[in-house]
Amino acid sequence: MPKISNKGLAMPQSPIRKLVPFAEKAYAEGKKVYHLNIGQPDIKTPQNAIDAVKALSLDILAYTRSEGSDDYRHKIAEYYKGVNINVAKEDIIVTTGGSEALLFAFGSIMDTNDEVIIPEPFYANYNGFSTASGVSVVPVISKIEDNFALPAIEEFEKLITPKTKAILICNPGNPTGYLYSREEISKLAKIVKKHDLFIIADEVYREFAYDGNQHVSILEDEFGLENHAILIDSVSKRYSMCGARIGCLVSKNKDVISTALKFAQARLSPPTLAQIASEAALATPQSYFDDVIDEYVERRNLLIEGLESIDGVKVAKPKGAFYCVAELPIKNSDHFAQWLLESFDVDNETIMVAPAGGFYSTPNVGLNQIRIAYVLNKESLKKSIHILKEALKVYND
Amino acid sequence: MPKISNKGLAMPQSPIRKLVPFAEKAYAEGKKVYHLNIGQPDIKTPQNAIDAVKALSLDILAYTRSEGSDDYRHKIAEYYKGVNINVAKEDIIVTTGGSEALLFAFGSIMDTNDEVIIPEPFYANYNGFSTASGVSVVPVISKIEDNFALPAIEEFEKLITPKTKAILICNPGNPTGYLYSREEISKLAKIVKKHDLFIIADEVYREFAYDGNQHVSILEDEFGLENHAILIDSVSKRYSMCGARIGCLVSKNKDVISTALKFAQARLSPPTLAQIASEAALATPQSYFDDVIDEYVERRNLLIEGLESIDGVKVAKPKGAFYCVAELPIKNSDHFAQWLLESFDVDNETIMVAPAGGFYSTPNVGLNQIRIAYVLNKESLKKSIHILKEALKVYND
Repeated sequence: MPKISNKGLAMPQSPIRKLVPFAEKAYAEGKKVYHLNIGQPDIKTPQNAIDAVKALSLDILAYTRSEGSDDYRHKIAEYYKGVNINVAKEDIIVTTGGSEALLFAFGSIMDTNDEVIIPEPFYANYNGFSTASGVSVVPVISKIEDNFALPAIEEFEKLITPKTKAILICNPGNPTGYLYSREEISKLAKIVKKHDLFIIADEVYREFAYDGNQHVSILEDEFGLENHAILIDSVSKRYSMCGARIGCLVSKNKDVISTALKFAQARLSPPTLAQIASEAALATPQSYFDDVIDEYVERRNLLIEGLESIDGVKVAKPKGAFYCVAELPIKNSDHFAQWLLESFDVDNETIMVAPAGGFYSTPNVGLNQIRIAYVLNKESLKKSIHILKEALKVYND
Repeated sequence: MPKISNKGLAMPQSPIRKLVPFAEKAYAEGKKVYHLNIGQPDIKTPQNAIDAVKALSLDILAYTRSEGSDDYRHKIAEYYKGVNINVAKEDIIVTTGGSEALLFAFGSIMDTNDEVIIPEPFYANYNGFSTASGVSVVPVISKIEDNFALPAIEEFEKLITPKTKAILICNPGNPTGYLYSREEISKLAKIVKKHDLFIIADEVYREFAYDGNQHVSILEDEFGLENHAILIDSVSKRYSMCGARIGCLVSKNKDVISTALKFAQARLSPPTLAQIASEAALATPQSYFDDVIDEYVERRNLLIEGLESIDGVKVAKPKGAFYCVAELPIKNSDHFAQWLLESFDVDNETIMVAPAGGFYSTPNVGLNQIRIAYVLNKESLKKSIHILKEALKVYND
């Protein structure tokens, strides 16, 4: 029998999705499962996006341009101007989700065994994209004790080698909810310019900044990163349309765009129907976001207070996105998460959480941590916290 | 300024799309351009697929399972049973077009510098996917004189090294229109079993087999390729819905499926809206295909007769798909294709063709060939042939 590749063997299982079979067993047993494990919001997709698809008027569902339609990219550029990012449609390639934008960015700037520095814990699939691209992740550790703030610049500099090609940040952060300050972005800008690196910023949670904090993009003019910055974006979270699979790669570096376009041409075009929905979504009124953000802030407050009320639980208060990392009074969250689905319930209800180990590339770090996505309504979150509290009592007995 | 990767530099430009700027210049000058260069059919998408999208009833455009929804995969398996391919939903991963299925297949079975043998000329983007995956293409040359039949098995065996992991075929072939016989598939089956290789078959043009010939799949039971075969498929051409970006990877090798699933999980899910359209498309009645195939056969006959009537033009008669490769009495089809757009017209109309060099990985082969996609109606094809005839007279003067 012919053999699987080493790359294929090395590809990580999704820490978010690997527990699915146990969840399915729980459903089969008639249990209700609260999904705190996945960033699939329960927020409604803007009606104008849905309506645009329902109003579909075409005879042939044809390819679009590989870089996305001109109209759509023009409107995306307009959107960016509104958030202090000066780009033109020529700086934008529409992709199949932020996922594909990351793959294009990795392929365009890194070869096999090149290194990318990523503050850890980080979005688990960065490991997958790195493995798929043959690239090595070099983690710089941020700590729950520091609320997952950017590690000191010296910590980055210690890790830079001739193989280092880029620093990758997620801002606001998944899984930490950490929002980088202007000062921190400025520090990162200095370091990438000094060492002539690329900086890739995954800004898909841009709108989700709380407590009066404002999101700061690496592409704002003041940082002077025209040659260095690659912005990764997506409609998935912004408009609660994860299933669209539309994102984009943005850069003012013409070589990056012309190279990424070759990857884009090989796969022909991003999905046409989803581009129609995504273009319409750009007209979503500010009131939609105001409501959504109010809702997330209430959920976050409820969740953090709830977690802090449980003995032995430590949690970093998120300033953005809709995740938090919590440290639990347990040894192994993989085991705990599976146990929650297989062996525990309160009135036939249980919770599904994401073990945090998969969000670290350093072995054996974060094993007592979980990621919680607060994408459920407050009633469900309250019940979930109660289930977690009761579960920890039983589990630790 | 930080540098582009070697991989990025090596990524080929799409030979089909690289002439686009010249076409745009031609439009700007008011010329009409007949697009013979791209496999975007003018055939209508089945109404049931469009209607399914228009009837959309959901509040949240959510992720589906990474491998595609259970219902859709179940229905795909039923479709395969109807074409003599016995597979179950567990053997299927829904992908973002056939393109992504190829990337998952390459990543799952090949490492950097591994080799894949491909009969040449081949679908140009195989070069792109190979470069993106760090894999080397080893071409085995098929010739226009032989109507692009499968080269002798000895030619394959000469090329097999310890680095060879797979043979990749496209059946029916893009760009050749070649349809492999049962005997040829049987020969390939023997060779992959003897050398313990994978065989990847891109069968996206399965329905487009002409002149009473029947398509033969590598996954038919008689070939015994359960462990070796990876089938690549797509809805793009079958239902004239190229813009959906839905395809699938099919294999009865459980290790291939579990590995490809890890690549699929990293990118979360295939597009949801397009899955809805694609699932509905499966109910398309046979009469739709009968009409479409009648139409393509008429177009093919018209095109081949037309080409054969031009002095110095040689053409292989396609038995499937909707492309043909023609040899022209010129030296360089890149130059000729650009000249057609920039400097030639008949009554302000010209044609756009795909230079065939990009469909070969062997340097300097096929330079006097072009690929023609007969995806235009007969009237347009007639005009296109006339333009080509007149153009060759002027160009060769």
